[in-house]
Amino acid sequence: MRTTSVGVFKVATKGPGDVSGLISLIGSGAIDPASILAILGKTEGNGGVNDFTREYAVAALCTALAPKLDLTPHEVEQRIAFVMSGGTEGVLSPHITVFTRQQVATPHAGIAGKRLSIGMAQTRDFLPEELGRSAQITETARAVKAAMADAGISDAADVHFVQIKCPLLTSERVEAAAARGAKTATISAYSSMAYSRGASALGVAVALGEVASDISDDVVLRRYDLFSKVASTSSGIELMHNVVIVLGNSEGSASEFEIGHAVMDDAIDAAAVMSALKSVGLGTTPKSGRELVNILAKAEASPDGTVRGSRHTMLEDTDISSTRHARAAVGGLIAGLAGTSAVYVSGGAEHQGPAGGGPVAVIAHLP
Amino acid sequence: MRTTSVGVFKVATKGPGDVSGLISLIGSGAIDPASILAILGKTEGNGGVNDFTREYAVAALCTALAPKLDLTPHEVEQRIAFVMSGGTEGVLSPHITVFTRQQVATPHAGIAGKRLSIGMAQTRDFLPEELGRSAQITETARAVKAAMADAGISDAADVHFVQIKCPLLTSERVEAAAARGAKTATISAYSSMAYSRGASALGVAVALGEVASDISDDVVLRRYDLFSKVASTSSGIELMHNVVIVLGNSEGSASEFEIGHAVMDDAIDAAAVMSALKSVGLGTTPKSGRELVNILAKAEASPDGTVRGSRHTMLEDTDISSTRHARAAVGGLIAGLAGTSAVYVSGGAEHQGPAGGGPVAVIAHLP
Amino acid sequence: MRTTSVGVFKVATKGPGDVSGLISLIGSGAIDPASILAILGKTEGNGGVNDFTREYAVAALCTALAPKLDLTPHEVEQRIAFVMSGGTEGVLSPHITVFTRQQVATPHAGIAGKRLSIGMAQTRDFLPEELGRSAQITETARAVKAAMADAGISDAADVHFVQIKCPLLTSERVEAAAARGAKTATISAYSSMAYSRGASALGVAVALGEVASDISDDVVLRRYDLFSKVASTSSGIELMHNVVIVLGNSEGSASEFEIGHAVMDDAIDAAAVMSALKSVGLGTTPKSGRELVNILAKAEASPDGTVRGSRHTMLEDTDISSTRHARAAVGGLIAGLAGTSAVYVSGGAEHQGPAGGGPVAVIAHLP
Amino acid sequence: MRTTSVGVFKVATKGPGDVSGLISLIGSGAIDPASILAILGKTEGNGGVNDFTREYAVAALCTALAPKLDLTPHEVEQRIAFVMSGGTEGVLSPHITVFTRQQVATPHAGIAGKRLSIGMAQTRDFLPEELGRSAQITETARAVKAAMADAGISDAADVHFVQIKCPLLTSERVEAAAARGAKTATISAYSSMAYSRGASALGVAVALGEVASDISDDVVLRRYDLFSKVASTSSGIELMHNVVIVLGNSEGSASEFEIGHAVMDDAIDAAAVMSALKSVGLGTTPKSGRELVNILAKAEASPDGTVRGSRHTMLEDTDISSTRHARAAVGGLIAGLAGTSAVYVSGGAEHQGPAGGGPVAVIAHLP
Repeated sequence: MRTTSVGVFKVATKGPGDVSGLISLIGSGAIDPASILAILGKTEGNGGVNDFTREYAVAALCTALAPKLDLTPHEVEQRIAFVMSGGTEGVLSPHITVFTRQQVATPHAGIAGKRLSIGMAQTRDFLPEELGRSAQITETARAVKAAMADAGISDAADVHFVQIKCPLLTSERVEAAAARGAKTATISAYSSMAYSRGASALGVAVALGEVASDISDDVVLRRYDLFSKVASTSSGIELMHNVVIVLGNSEGSASEFEIGHAVMDDAIDAAAVMSALKSVGLGTTPKSGRELVNILAKAEASPDGTVRGSRHTMLEDTDISSTRHARAAVGGLIAGLAGTSAVYVSGGAEHQGPAGGGPVAVIAHLP
Repeated sequence: MRTTSVGVFKVATKGPGDVSGLISLIGSGAIDPASILAILGKTEGNGGVNDFTREYAVAALCTALAPKLDLTPHEVEQRIAFVMSGGTEGVLSPHITVFTRQQVATPHAGIAGKRLSIGMAQTRDFLPEELGRSAQITETARAVKAAMADAGISDAADVHFVQIKCPLLTSERVEAAAARGAKTATISAYSSMAYSRGASALGVAVALGEVASDISDDVVLRRYDLFSKVASTSSGIELMHNVVIVLGNSEGSASEFEIGHAVMDDAIDAAAVMSALKSVGLGTTPKSGRELVNILAKAEASPDGTVRGSRHTMLEDTDISSTRHARAAVGGLIAGLAGTSAVYVSGGAEHQGPAGGGPVAVIAHLP
Repeated sequence: MRTTSVGVFKVATKGPGDVSGLISLIGSGAIDPASILAILGKTEGNGGVNDFTREYAVAALCTALAPKLDLTPHEVEQRIAFVMSGGTEGVLSPHITVFTRQQVATPHAGIAGKRLSIGMAQTRDFLPEELGRSAQITETARAVKAAMADAGISDAADVHFVQIKCPLLTSERVEAAAARGAKTATISAYSSMAYSRGASALGVAVALGEVASDISDDVVLRRYDLFSKVASTSSGIELMHNVVIVLGNSEGSASEFEIGHAVMDDAIDAAAVMSALKSVGLGTTPKSGRELVNILAKAEASPDGTVRGSRHTMLEDTDISSTRHARAAVGGLIAGLAGTSAVYVSGGAEHQGPAGGGPVAVIAHLP
Repeated sequence: MRTTSVGVFKVATKGPGDVSGLISLIGSGAIDPASILAILGKTEGNGGVNDFTREYAVAALCTALAPKLDLTPHEVEQRIAFVMSGGTEGVLSPHITVFTRQQVATPHAGIAGKRLSIGMAQTRDFLPEELGRSAQITETARAVKAAMADAGISDAADVHFVQIKCPLLTSERVEAAAARGAKTATISAYSSMAYSRGASALGVAVALGEVASDISDDVVLRRYDLFSKVASTSSGIELMHNVVIVLGNSEGSASEFEIGHAVMDDAIDAAAVMSALKSVGLGTTPKSGRELVNILAKAEASPDGTVRGSRHTMLEDTDISSTRHARAAVGGLIAGLAGTSAVYVSGGAEHQGPAGGGPVAVIAHLP
């Protein structure tokens, strides 16, 4: 029996602090604020350590939603999962995607097949020295399974995108660890973002059976043949635990949406993007009435320094970080194939898809 | 009668000073150095005012070719047209494309249709205050016509790409003008690159009848509805005149190559890229034996701040110049559709294609 | 009779959203929130068009102060003047400086000389096409005089720093003007910051009699021999009018602080910094008991491309904007001479001090 | 007996490829090209991995000097030590400093005290996995001793600046090591620059007895209490061995120049800069006839994230690398105290002076 319904709303923003679109949708009754489970956003920052647009966006959303939910801003932040991915390089357009979940009293008749479902869970807080290491992998795997259960999904094949928000190291955190005699995986804040994203993605891979469950610290950022096909991890300064959001399809959902995915083998894998579109009835000859809602993808500079045999310069650029380059390029490709630049392309795809590639998921609205 | 043959060689580089690939091709006899007419390159710099990779690449090529041509490096620079476009953002891969032209003694039998032809010309040196204004437009138009004649092309419809190398303003040049009481179009070096590119493109449009010939200074960087569909202009600090290279197809050519083009209406116009590929028998179902040599395209951030209705942030970014953003995004799209990241995507498409779009040309090797 | 007292509190911040230091001072009773007149801050952003740390900091401060003042956040923003200068390049340390003003019942005995006084005023909202032009100059001059009166200062010689917060142009604003048939001073958002800062500074110069009052549009960003020795202007996206804060010394003040200033003739004018320190009894041999509170200075890349005869590269750098370069360099010098890196050095000194130089003011706490 | 004379010539450059100043000095007879031992330069690039201005400057100098020395450009590069430090942030002005050494037939009468002396040596080529580790430390120490001998200096106290040019890792080099089963100190090109600079500086410290000679790999980039007070190391992509240049004073020199140094304890240590100036008779009250030639200094962002108790943001900035921030700030301070912005401030001071500080040497011309 279909007991839940999941809604997806893509809302353009005019700046990281702009909440007017969401507030309008709440005002018009299109969104019941109490049903909001998660908000994924693309914000204008650099996506790096000093990207304050992420926390600014979250602060603005929490402040705006607080009176709607009769909570304090801090309580809103505890209740809703906010994942802000900084960096709208190239054509990428700042926006938020709001996911809602509600119980359905009387499901629509005539729903066939599995429909979009969403589940959430989180890990405990990590110590700085646990980031990028097996503790983060194991705890994340556990949270992924909990989120699948929350989404009413039992088959790993029905999981199409696992978004994780994970911590990073700052000078302060590195020193706090050092003061206890503990050595962090790296002393660089920027590098720690990669470690945290990588270990979190391996946690997804462990949970979904994509890799063996007994993997060690050593593989993080080294064994790029180990990866998840659906993990998307994003590190931010504002938390010390992992928040896991599972997106998939479920028989128990009465949603008007469906999700599918493919894996880009490299940063110019147009075929994979087309395949992901086709998996939900879109693509060159879309099924009648189906409409694209959003594309969720990860991008990275291939660590071997080449794309399909040609040298790239993303990893040797001291002016622009490689994550910015990768988002711009993959964003350009996906926007071109999707026909819209308001897509969610996030950087840093360590262990998320093969080296240099990444997962690409598509959410379609069904007629 | 087919009297000339034009060759095209795409050579990967390991850095702006790397000439080893070209020297190998000369050593093996594949390229006769005396036949080299022009070299277009993508180099690793930022494509901005302080992009020294362009002049470094030219210096390295001149020094390497000098003994092969029995000339001084300076004489090589006078003889061959070097157009280095800085900026290999995203997946773009540094490379050079070498164009050769030779007289053919006995043309291959069975050549049908028009084949790749190339012609060159240059303007006089400009005064700083002429950049971005009608003097630059008019002189460029004259040089385009001379280059067409040099290419053996009389019909504007046979012109598929006009590459122009044009000057920019530096503090010194602005002051030199001011000392004479002359006011330059802008006092910013960075802005002057746009003015120079724009006026040069309008010169192409005038020559090819795409716009009226009596256009005034005022339209430059303002009337973006006036543009050329085949102009590609690139500004650099190293010269004070315009160098014009016309690429088209001609009955008089016995080349093994063909060129075609389309116009991207915006930065995510995948259909235009496919159309350009199809125009030379490539695309989703390529004609037997045809192979892609290179794609030559221009990219820019649309001046109205949107891409197909969605806001972009390229023009408001103080960390990364909009030309870098645009090259990265359009480069990602073209590389995805072409299957290779060694493509020539150059930034700053003022009056080169519609606002936010740009020309895209494809060179194919025929069986 | 000394009727007012002005307090100055420098508070380190841990990020643009960090209000904990200020809230602590309020909690301890050191600051009466009702007495807060203005807050000047250095935030972590790039100081450019897309520097969202400024508005984030203001939003965080307004949200935090609202319950303390029994106002809405929006009302707080109307009541207190917030001037956030983005960009803590080099050694510069993020912090806020809180200015308070209160009536004094019984002034301290034995106060000699003039003491720190502060006054505020604001202009009407500007139209986009008024920015950088005489309307902005004239309205600003009027507001400066009103702020002097508010500060109880009648002699221009007693004015030591005039901080102005002014608007900038965005694509939207440029288009809004164009839709009305009006042409803005520039179409570039980044360039508009310079125009707005320049015209605002000239407004100060007019008010203080440093330049003639009938200056025309043409001088803005061209006649750099026209400038104010005490103006400091900072442009931000969040407003469309100018906010003027006058800092000086007044007989009517019972403050424990004193302010003085000097003018840096170029970006390496160490002597001027020492002179400013000495003007309030600091410097190499400080008067007993006097302590440095903060230094307020403006920095810019000299428009002629040189510093004391040697070429600089700030204006030709496409990777880093010249304002960032200038803040880093001048911030390094001032921090070295002051012995602290928590100083307020703001970029973009058009018509604020001579070309390439800028005003430098020092606030000292008296024993 | 004074058998050698060392000359120092500071020459402004107009760009990384500008050799006109040096060629003029050779043309006028001021410099005998055969006497050129080393050229230190500040070039316009970013000082990072993709800073091609360094190799461009070297290529231009070698090409220009080749006919003067009757050598090939490659032979010139083998003969003269070229150390190009990329990054002229803030006020820093691009220039080269040419060091010459000649035998003197009849020394000037009346020379008292030790005078400027220079010596050189180099290590063997390193394997990628040796960079940042004890092999690099040990080999560098050996080369420093050889260079001291070459300079005629036996007392470590007479050594005032040891400039080292050292390699970095590229993707290719990391992979070459990995292919042999060897693990490099880091896989990031940018990070490898720090490792290489750090190990090289420790090599100087070992040679001069500043640290124990049996230090292990582990201390590199971790034990910042171990450092040399005179080491200045600069990493570049163009070599795989270390080149060592020792600058000091010697009884055997008949030079018109003298060198001295001090150590900056942090990035705002104005007193140390003054002390270095005083050590060669300059400073606030310079000895009669003495003139500043150049200041050679190293700068870095203090790894603990603070400068004299105030937080800095250099290490958390994803837009601008910390080395650029540090050069800009320290360059501003030194230029202010020296009265000229044509000074040699190089970034990345790992184990060169205390953490966050660095050596500062001054060369004076004597009357």
